[in-house]
Amino acid sequence: MSANFFFNLRIFLTSRKGVRSMKTNVKPLADKVLIRPIQEDETTKSGIVLPDTAEKEKPEKGEVVAVGSGKILENGKIQKPEVKKGDKVLFTKYSPSEIKVDGEELLILSESDILAVIK
Amino acid sequence: MSANFFFNLRIFLTSRKGVRSMKTNVKPLADKVLIRPIQEDETTKSGIVLPDTAEKEKPEKGEVVAVGSGKILENGKIQKPEVKKGDKVLFTKYSPSEIKVDGEELLILSESDILAVIK
Amino acid sequence: MSANFFFNLRIFLTSRKGVRSMKTNVKPLADKVLIRPIQEDETTKSGIVLPDTAEKEKPEKGEVVAVGSGKILENGKIQKPEVKKGDKVLFTKYSPSEIKVDGEELLILSESDILAVIK
Amino acid sequence: MSANFFFNLRIFLTSRKGVRSMKTNVKPLADKVLIRPIQEDETTKSGIVLPDTAEKEKPEKGEVVAVGSGKILENGKIQKPEVKKGDKVLFTKYSPSEIKVDGEELLILSESDILAVIK
Amino acid sequence: MSANFFFNLRIFLTSRKGVRSMKTNVKPLADKVLIRPIQEDETTKSGIVLPDTAEKEKPEKGEVVAVGSGKILENGKIQKPEVKKGDKVLFTKYSPSEIKVDGEELLILSESDILAVIK
Amino acid sequence: MSANFFFNLRIFLTSRKGVRSMKTNVKPLADKVLIRPIQEDETTKSGIVLPDTAEKEKPEKGEVVAVGSGKILENGKIQKPEVKKGDKVLFTKYSPSEIKVDGEELLILSESDILAVIK
Amino acid sequence: MSANFFFNLRIFLTSRKGVRSMKTNVKPLADKVLIRPIQEDETTKSGIVLPDTAEKEKPEKGEVVAVGSGKILENGKIQKPEVKKGDKVLFTKYSPSEIKVDGEELLILSESDILAVIK
Repeated sequence: MSANFFFNLRIFLTSRKGVRSMKTNVKPLADKVLIRPIQEDETTKSGIVLPDTAEKEKPEKGEVVAVGSGKILENGKIQKPEVKKGDKVLFTKYSPSEIKVDGEELLILSESDILAVIK
Repeated sequence: MSANFFFNLRIFLTSRKGVRSMKTNVKPLADKVLIRPIQEDETTKSGIVLPDTAEKEKPEKGEVVAVGSGKILENGKIQKPEVKKGDKVLFTKYSPSEIKVDGEELLILSESDILAVIK
Repeated sequence: MSANFFFNLRIFLTSRKGVRSMKTNVKPLADKVLIRPIQEDETTKSGIVLPDTAEKEKPEKGEVVAVGSGKILENGKIQKPEVKKGDKVLFTKYSPSEIKVDGEELLILSESDILAVIK
Repeated sequence: MSANFFFNLRIFLTSRKGVRSMKTNVKPLADKVLIRPIQEDETTKSGIVLPDTAEKEKPEKGEVVAVGSGKILENGKIQKPEVKKGDKVLFTKYSPSEIKVDGEELLILSESDILAVIK
Repeated sequence: MSANFFFNLRIFLTSRKGVRSMKTNVKPLADKVLIRPIQEDETTKSGIVLPDTAEKEKPEKGEVVAVGSGKILENGKIQKPEVKKGDKVLFTKYSPSEIKVDGEELLILSESDILAVIK
Repeated sequence: MSANFFFNLRIFLTSRKGVRSMKTNVKPLADKVLIRPIQEDETTKSGIVLPDTAEKEKPEKGEVVAVGSGKILENGKIQKPEVKKGDKVLFTKYSPSEIKVDGEELLILSESDILAVIK
Repeated sequence: MSANFFFNLRIFLTSRKGVRSMKTNVKPLADKVLIRPIQEDETTKSGIVLPDTAEKEKPEKGEVVAVGSGKILENGKIQKPEVKKGDKVLFTKYSPSEIKVDGEELLILSESDILAVIK
């Protein structure tokens, strides 16, 4: 529980500072997108934060950290990605691969696995 | 049962007001469509509302909340979506992903999973 | 058995009046086709109507109620549907999705699942 | 056995008269082909007709009754069918759908499931 | 064993006379190829013919009897087959369909299932 | 454990010297990429190196040793690879084939299985 | 063991003489490549040859004996193969079909199953 508390804190800091800089530069290939996951919480009317536990099928939220050059079409042209660094996005939970960059867990997925941008 | 009653009430309100505004702006990507589900009810001749229970294979009904820019074709062109915000649509039950926006359960699916527009 | 009798009656009425009007307007998307199923019966030489029971693998018959604008090809062009409203068509039994419009069970399928037009 | 005898008789009549006319007109869609099956028999040297029983994996024989307008290619053009009404064709046993037209069992399949034309 | 002996004899006759004529004309469709199978034998140094028994995964050998007009490409053009009547070809054992023409077992497969031509 | 120690030593030497030369020249075909795997380690704050053991689903790291000429597109053009010799890349763990070159274990995968370049 | 010894001997002879001539001419079709397998051995520092036994998932090595004209692209053009007669290649173990030519076991596979050329 205390671990959970600190993790939430980290997220609040993140949302204040925007996308944090990485010491290691990760450049996704082609249509790949690098994402920092955002832990989804439920807030009751009384303001108590309830961590998401049992609901596993919902898409997850994340912040775009880096994008590839774009998908290579069959005619050889590059289709630029629709999302950009800093975008908050929704994606299906089981599509991304996990990578650890500078000790932080990030996600990489194809842009076609991103469902929507949230503003 | 009482929960069901209030939910139906909410739908009636929805149908009067059209598409309700969201505080959070969700922009679907490419050929994705954001949908607010409409609970299907059976009304008997005597006017009693019977909630749909056992029939699980029927497509579901929903109202389009937002559409993406369109499907990216292999020649790099964007195919604009055929549906637009406010359209009432039918779709197969297991195609959408569920997302929660401002505490409300919405659905995201590809436009090709939409079967028809109802007027 | 009596239920079956009345249902057959309904079909005969349908075939006399052609496609019945719907209060709700359903516009299929892209290459989708909306179909009103026609119950297939066997008539013996003595004129007794035998309802189809055991033969489950045969394609089914239906009347086209509405068609979509057509299939979107990879070059972005729309391929107009070959069938039109009022056509009687044969299709494989497990391809359509069922929808209920104004209390009536209709079917939606892709035009490529239609095998033939009957005249 | 007597049923088999009469069925063979029917086939011999068919082969003499060519493709029999149907009261109901069935127009296959796109690349679909309507086929009247021909029962394959083995004739021993002594002239005794042996009905085919155990060999289930061989392709079947049939006579083309009607063809569709042709396959729709990705560039929107229609590829005219290679077979025509009256052609005797071989096809793999499990590819066709069965339909009953004017009380007669016919088969519908895609032209790509036809292996060869026999002359 | 004696059956095997006679079958080998038939093959030797075949290889002397080239492709035997068929009373029935079989014209394969599109990219299909009609093949007369050649039984593969092992000959020991002492000249004893050993019929192939246990090795089931090897591709089989055959002689091309007839070819289709060619594969229909997505742009509507016909790709002429690379093999021609009389070619001896190797193909994977489970790709062909068996057909019986004038009492003889022949094989039909797609040209893409042919691995090589032997000279 | 001592084996592990020596292996880590080898990695440190590798990272100092860059891509080591091979006596055997391996030229990947088309979109294939030859990669020398880099063993991922966890370093605690006290500087103790902890070898990665239980986490099996993470993508792996490697250094590009050689690249193919590029993917052949359907229009016959060659799509040059985005990665080049010396690039450090991330890839999903189960995509590569292992090959042994001059006694060293290397990996070959398609460029589309590479997730990102690390700098 | 003695059988293994003689097989290795054969390989050494092969590598001295380059690609041996075949009495039978085998011309692969389209994108197919004919390959003579090379048995991979491990040589310890003391020079003892250890035959490869347990490692089954590694790609195998072979020498190109003949190539097809090239892959047929969807626009009807032929994509010439990147490998040529005499090339030593690596390929995944389970992709080829085995054929016996003049008593010798050879392999046939699609060029896309070849991973790399070794020099």
